[in-house]
Amino acid sequence: MSSPEPLTRLVRLLARLPGVGEKTAARFALHFCLENAELAGALAAELEHLHERVGPCARCNNLAERDQDGALLCGVCRDSRRDAALLCIVAKVQDLVAVERSGAMRGRYFVLGKLLSPLDGIGPEALPLAALAARIEQDRVSEVIIATPPSVDGEATALLLARELTAQGVRVTRIASGVPHGGDLEFADQITLGRAIDGRRSL
Amino acid sequence: MSSPEPLTRLVRLLARLPGVGEKTAARFALHFCLENAELAGALAAELEHLHERVGPCARCNNLAERDQDGALLCGVCRDSRRDAALLCIVAKVQDLVAVERSGAMRGRYFVLGKLLSPLDGIGPEALPLAALAARIEQDRVSEVIIATPPSVDGEATALLLARELTAQGVRVTRIASGVPHGGDLEFADQITLGRAIDGRRSL
Repeated sequence: MSSPEPLTRLVRLLARLPGVGEKTAARFALHFCLENAELAGALAAELEHLHERVGPCARCNNLAERDQDGALLCGVCRDSRRDAALLCIVAKVQDLVAVERSGAMRGRYFVLGKLLSPLDGIGPEALPLAALAARIEQDRVSEVIIATPPSVDGEATALLLARELTAQGVRVTRIASGVPHGGDLEFADQITLGRAIDGRRSL
Repeated sequence: MSSPEPLTRLVRLLARLPGVGEKTAARFALHFCLENAELAGALAAELEHLHERVGPCARCNNLAERDQDGALLCGVCRDSRRDAALLCIVAKVQDLVAVERSGAMRGRYFVLGKLLSPLDGIGPEALPLAALAARIEQDRVSEVIIATPPSVDGEATALLLARELTAQGVRVTRIASGVPHGGDLEFADQITLGRAIDGRRSL
């Protein structure tokens, strides 16, 4: 069927969302068309000004809403109850959101934006190490929790950060890696199980 | 975490898409924020004018793009190679799209928009029976294929349509119901299997 041209364009854009294939995109597009005009209009209004309203926090790179003066400071950095001396380093904003959801972090964050990846040509010079050092200095951070993912790139980045930051005289810790909550030892891969044993704690 | 207000509004709108929960909506919203502004802007532009550009086809209720004169005629109704004497009745546009995808339909369509549903107070008077009769008259339709879903409401609607249209002197057929292609008889429910046997064909 030759579907209406605006619908085809809409499907092509929606298919660029993460985890959305052409079939799901078509389902969304039909929903926008067949629903009353309110949903499409409201979403258009939000999306149109999204990048003017929301941008990276000037202190930690988390997403922040622009205030009246045009400054970008995220909710975590604005929250005075947070412990400024505790800094959690994450690779990307999505990871920050996940850590926040856990409710286990009472400090602030620093979003790296990338990980060391020699194969992709991302070396230490590509990481915002100077900004991080300045932040630690300025906030008198006493402990840095490195929460990069337990992947090859994440571990390499953690090692590099640990070396740099220990030289700066700050306590550096790494999130635990092991069998996930509710997970089955029988089905855990050997690296995960190895890490769970290496990282054992006394009870 | 107090996430930026524009992000929260965006998540709330995206969660109204079919099959999208709050977590997926948040994933989409973050993607819009962290991607360059082009995707959000392009999607906003498409959505803003969607309901001016696309609307129900004047002849069959399929989705159609408005032409320069403001008229709405869908691709199927505009396609002169289609057999106007063969009319397929479907419940909704999504079903029309599915039938078109099969490539098995060389006629045109009529989208009912709803099904009989006594429990929801939808009786025969709510169905566009007059418009359907006029369409059959006008296009000199010789066969009507009823492709409402094989559900209680779909079957009831099919029976009503068959009675009305047979009186109009047109041949009325119903799509087959049975074990789906690649399906397992062992796991087919008893109604499906019963229908497959009732609808058997000689080989």
